[in-house]
Amino acid sequence: MNRTAWVISTPLLSPQSMVESYGEGARLCSSPNPQVSLVFSSSRPLDLVELERLLEAVGWSRRPVRRVRRALEHSLITVGLWRHDPRVPRLVGFARCTGDGVLEATIWDVAIHPLYQGAGLGRQLMDYLIDLLREMGTERVTLFADPGVLPFYERLGWELEPNGHRCGFWYAS
Amino acid sequence: MNRTAWVISTPLLSPQSMVESYGEGARLCSSPNPQVSLVFSSSRPLDLVELERLLEAVGWSRRPVRRVRRALEHSLITVGLWRHDPRVPRLVGFARCTGDGVLEATIWDVAIHPLYQGAGLGRQLMDYLIDLLREMGTERVTLFADPGVLPFYERLGWELEPNGHRCGFWYAS
Repeated sequence: MNRTAWVISTPLLSPQSMVESYGEGARLCSSPNPQVSLVFSSSRPLDLVELERLLEAVGWSRRPVRRVRRALEHSLITVGLWRHDPRVPRLVGFARCTGDGVLEATIWDVAIHPLYQGAGLGRQLMDYLIDLLREMGTERVTLFADPGVLPFYERLGWELEPNGHRCGFWYAS
Repeated sequence: MNRTAWVISTPLLSPQSMVESYGEGARLCSSPNPQVSLVFSSSRPLDLVELERLLEAVGWSRRPVRRVRRALEHSLITVGLWRHDPRVPRLVGFARCTGDGVLEATIWDVAIHPLYQGAGLGRQLMDYLIDLLREMGTERVTLFADPGVLPFYERLGWELEPNGHRCGFWYAS
């Protein structure tokens, strides 16, 4: 954990101000620094420029903002993890899923800013997203994992390739 | 191919009556029997009881109709393959996908009735669905394949587990 990311003290959030700033259903994330409040929300609007910066920071290739906006609009759930600041909360994590909300949901674009990695935030982000899917009544959740993050998902209890299932990809280009 | 499935002769479809019966965007499927017209459509409404019978015929477990209805309503595309009959077309194939319509789409529930398998209908069904996704501008299409159908998808040009990607599943129950 890069300490420089944690030195600015922010006031602790009251439940009321959390809902005001982050919307209904927002949830505090356990923070490695008691002076830093971290909040999950699936309803606070995302700033696409800020999201792009986050995704670039984790090393993902850029995608046109116009297409990303449409993809987010047509996602089943988008989740942001914000480092709270009463004036300008900062996006430090993200995930989204597509799906029918009943039988199937598929998780994409799970990202925690590198300065905030290694502190259990990814696990909490997945828990928050799964809880929302569970409330929705989704039966099965799926994802495609890079080799580098397989141990992460295994620790979270995901079944990798159950019954010999393999993932297939087809690219338009 | 079970010949008994093909003996009833049906009149060939005119383009006009195809659109009237199956909706805009319907496409004739190459049929192994010139007297049997087979039609793909993503707009003709599906009869859920008929769909359930089809999915049972391919050996899938039953799911509550109410949940299936909601899942179809929230799918990005649903495709039916009908054996044409001027009065009562019969559903002999199905596939659907979820997704954001831009960056990601995921294909589910690809089924051809056992009596109609082995005649290249599955390949045409996938082509029809992929063409719709391509028109929509989707960049990447994904699916989860059972071991038994891996050769089918490989023949269609799908990349299986590119770059070591693995699929993960999480079940609500």
